[in-house]
Amino acid sequence: MAEYTNMSKEELLREKELLQKKYDEFKAMGLSLDMSRGKPCKEQLDLSMGMLRADIDYTENGIDTRNYGILDGIPSCKKLFAELLGVDVKNIIAGPNASLTLMFDYITQCFAHGVLGETPWREIKNLKFICPVPGYDRHFTILEYFDIEMINIPINSDGPDMNAVRELVKDPSVKGMFCVPKYSNPTGITYSDEIVREIAALKPAAKDFRIIWDNAYFIHDLDDNGDELLNIFDVLSEYNNEDMVIEVCSTSKITFSGAGVSAIAASDANIKQIMKRLNCQTISYDKMNQLRHSRFFGDVSAVKEHMKKHAAILKPKFEIVLKHLENELGGLGIASWVNPNGGYFISLDVMNGCAKRVGELCKGAGVTLTPVGATYPYGKDPNNSNIRIAPSFPPVDELDLAAQILCVSVKIAAIEKLVG
Amino acid sequence: MAEYTNMSKEELLREKELLQKKYDEFKAMGLSLDMSRGKPCKEQLDLSMGMLRADIDYTENGIDTRNYGILDGIPSCKKLFAELLGVDVKNIIAGPNASLTLMFDYITQCFAHGVLGETPWREIKNLKFICPVPGYDRHFTILEYFDIEMINIPINSDGPDMNAVRELVKDPSVKGMFCVPKYSNPTGITYSDEIVREIAALKPAAKDFRIIWDNAYFIHDLDDNGDELLNIFDVLSEYNNEDMVIEVCSTSKITFSGAGVSAIAASDANIKQIMKRLNCQTISYDKMNQLRHSRFFGDVSAVKEHMKKHAAILKPKFEIVLKHLENELGGLGIASWVNPNGGYFISLDVMNGCAKRVGELCKGAGVTLTPVGATYPYGKDPNNSNIRIAPSFPPVDELDLAAQILCVSVKIAAIEKLVG
Repeated sequence: MAEYTNMSKEELLREKELLQKKYDEFKAMGLSLDMSRGKPCKEQLDLSMGMLRADIDYTENGIDTRNYGILDGIPSCKKLFAELLGVDVKNIIAGPNASLTLMFDYITQCFAHGVLGETPWREIKNLKFICPVPGYDRHFTILEYFDIEMINIPINSDGPDMNAVRELVKDPSVKGMFCVPKYSNPTGITYSDEIVREIAALKPAAKDFRIIWDNAYFIHDLDDNGDELLNIFDVLSEYNNEDMVIEVCSTSKITFSGAGVSAIAASDANIKQIMKRLNCQTISYDKMNQLRHSRFFGDVSAVKEHMKKHAAILKPKFEIVLKHLENELGGLGIASWVNPNGGYFISLDVMNGCAKRVGELCKGAGVTLTPVGATYPYGKDPNNSNIRIAPSFPPVDELDLAAQILCVSVKIAAIEKLVG
Repeated sequence: MAEYTNMSKEELLREKELLQKKYDEFKAMGLSLDMSRGKPCKEQLDLSMGMLRADIDYTENGIDTRNYGILDGIPSCKKLFAELLGVDVKNIIAGPNASLTLMFDYITQCFAHGVLGETPWREIKNLKFICPVPGYDRHFTILEYFDIEMINIPINSDGPDMNAVRELVKDPSVKGMFCVPKYSNPTGITYSDEIVREIAALKPAAKDFRIIWDNAYFIHDLDDNGDELLNIFDVLSEYNNEDMVIEVCSTSKITFSGAGVSAIAASDANIKQIMKRLNCQTISYDKMNQLRHSRFFGDVSAVKEHMKKHAAILKPKFEIVLKHLENELGGLGIASWVNPNGGYFISLDVMNGCAKRVGELCKGAGVTLTPVGATYPYGKDPNNSNIRIAPSFPPVDELDLAAQILCVSVKIAAIEKLVG
């Protein structure tokens, strides 16, 4: 098949006729397929049922985990996260079930009390954050809730465009940046060592500039040759910048998405300030659930083994989607995508101006995609070209159909644009 | 024994000598007893172990509780809380393990976005809250964190001094009030129907005045003749004031203090605004834990039966402390206390100026009390007279000793004051 951009109008219209027929056949099937959210599937959730034991002793080192107290989490759970993230136990707080809450609450804290003695953000006008795009919609939602202006910068195959970042951080009203450094949501790329170093070396004008390092997919490889992410805390100290990064992660996509354990990793000074807030906000997070987790895994190698079981379920799902993208869109010059080594998403870029139309077409044939634009601040994809595909939840046979419908839709939308 | 205030200096000094001897004997025992926090004891926590079953089906009405989603909580858990609090299911959100978090986060929301379209609190100077005292230290901590000025008003045997409240709410910078309406922390009293009606009828100058109705002990009776609290939501509508009250509660002292489920009850408009924030703050709270709770109990009557088991453990603990107070301090004119029908505390008022000294003496003999002053904003008891006794955690034999030491300490401190 030739590139669409090299075809004549007549050829394109003939092609469209064939596609339309195919599309109508799919439509007639009355399907209802959902590739919209990065939810684990039932088989993945089943992997962790072993932790729900009635017969474990809910005490640890004399701590009755059922009772109040131990604000920073039980020792075994903190230790597990410390080893997973490669930081010291004292720099970990084990949190609630969603790391989103840790991020939202941290921004709240910056509003109410400011960062380590700096002016509280609530007293500052025109706060800005840097947003590598496409990115995670829920990061943008937090910033929008607090009325923080979001500035888009491109994300490349090795991470954010650092020239753009370095330029922006000269502005003292630029207060932070959200990053998903490994298997980035949605592009699937992992920041290169060089980019991580450049981030760690930033010298922002704002002393209270904070990078929210959302390491959501830190151990979520699809096979044995997963990406390696440089541990930013190993580098930050070289630049005397330990306080600049707040790292979060969770077991949401390791154990139970709605009932996992999250963790925050941060410098001594940041941990101290976070603990001060936590002391007002809660008496303790769910330590019984922390204990279930640390007992179920024991150590990092058990978590790694466990993640291989997830990969075995997820990989065929990614493969079926990628196979259709490759077979049906490859070489047409109308779409590009990244083949990720882990994470939860495939990011598909269609022709500029076509993503919304693709979404409509998919919807018309019973396939729900993440709302087009959601991967950009304010829901506005300036190029109207990015589509986030979430293959984790539906069964393989449904994905097979959904991916075909998606490909047909991408082609129809492209032809509609090309023939005008 | 005569009232201390009627005794001569010589009599008092003789009495003190005897007390000092007794005190020294206790001291020599090298005890370490803790009556400082309202923590359930192990036997209470054991009552709920039945909910930790590996064999329950974690789905409800097609909802896989292990996965993301259902921001307001699963239907069965919301229904249980709705019945417990006497409100409509649509006015309930099932929350995280600590109701403290619901309260802190609600104040956060008022800061960031204001109340139902009013000016965000972060833009308002000199915010004030009304604090019935003595009260719950963690309420004060929240207000202090947000730099909200706390104004003490007395709490009487039937609830807050409403004349003082009505006077204060004329000031538009007075934005709210924290209440523990049943088995008030620490005084143990329950607001009378009349007081609840007067609260519901308030017409504060501030449209965004909010009463945080912390119904922490809503079902926590010590015997069958528990106090009855009028359901404020039944009355608010009469005064067109449904939006004024945010009620919270939790199962912290029903199931597991560190791993229960909390709930918020509020008007349609407030629920809507809270949900908007929750949508930014989390993906869902722990629905597996919600399901454990609703399956374990099923309905309100099961919760009531369960609470009788708590009462059977707690009542002897309250009785032993009250027995010593009665026998050893009764009639001396140096202390007063309330005999509560439920809740977690006995509030003891010693002679003005003596509470800190009592705390010191207790500590010297190995008994830890809640820090004196903690029951007041900023940790400052203006009369230096209130002591919160928390009898739930220690075993009865330890309480027996601790209460004796407390009584001796109260007497010594009183004599020290009287002889000057």
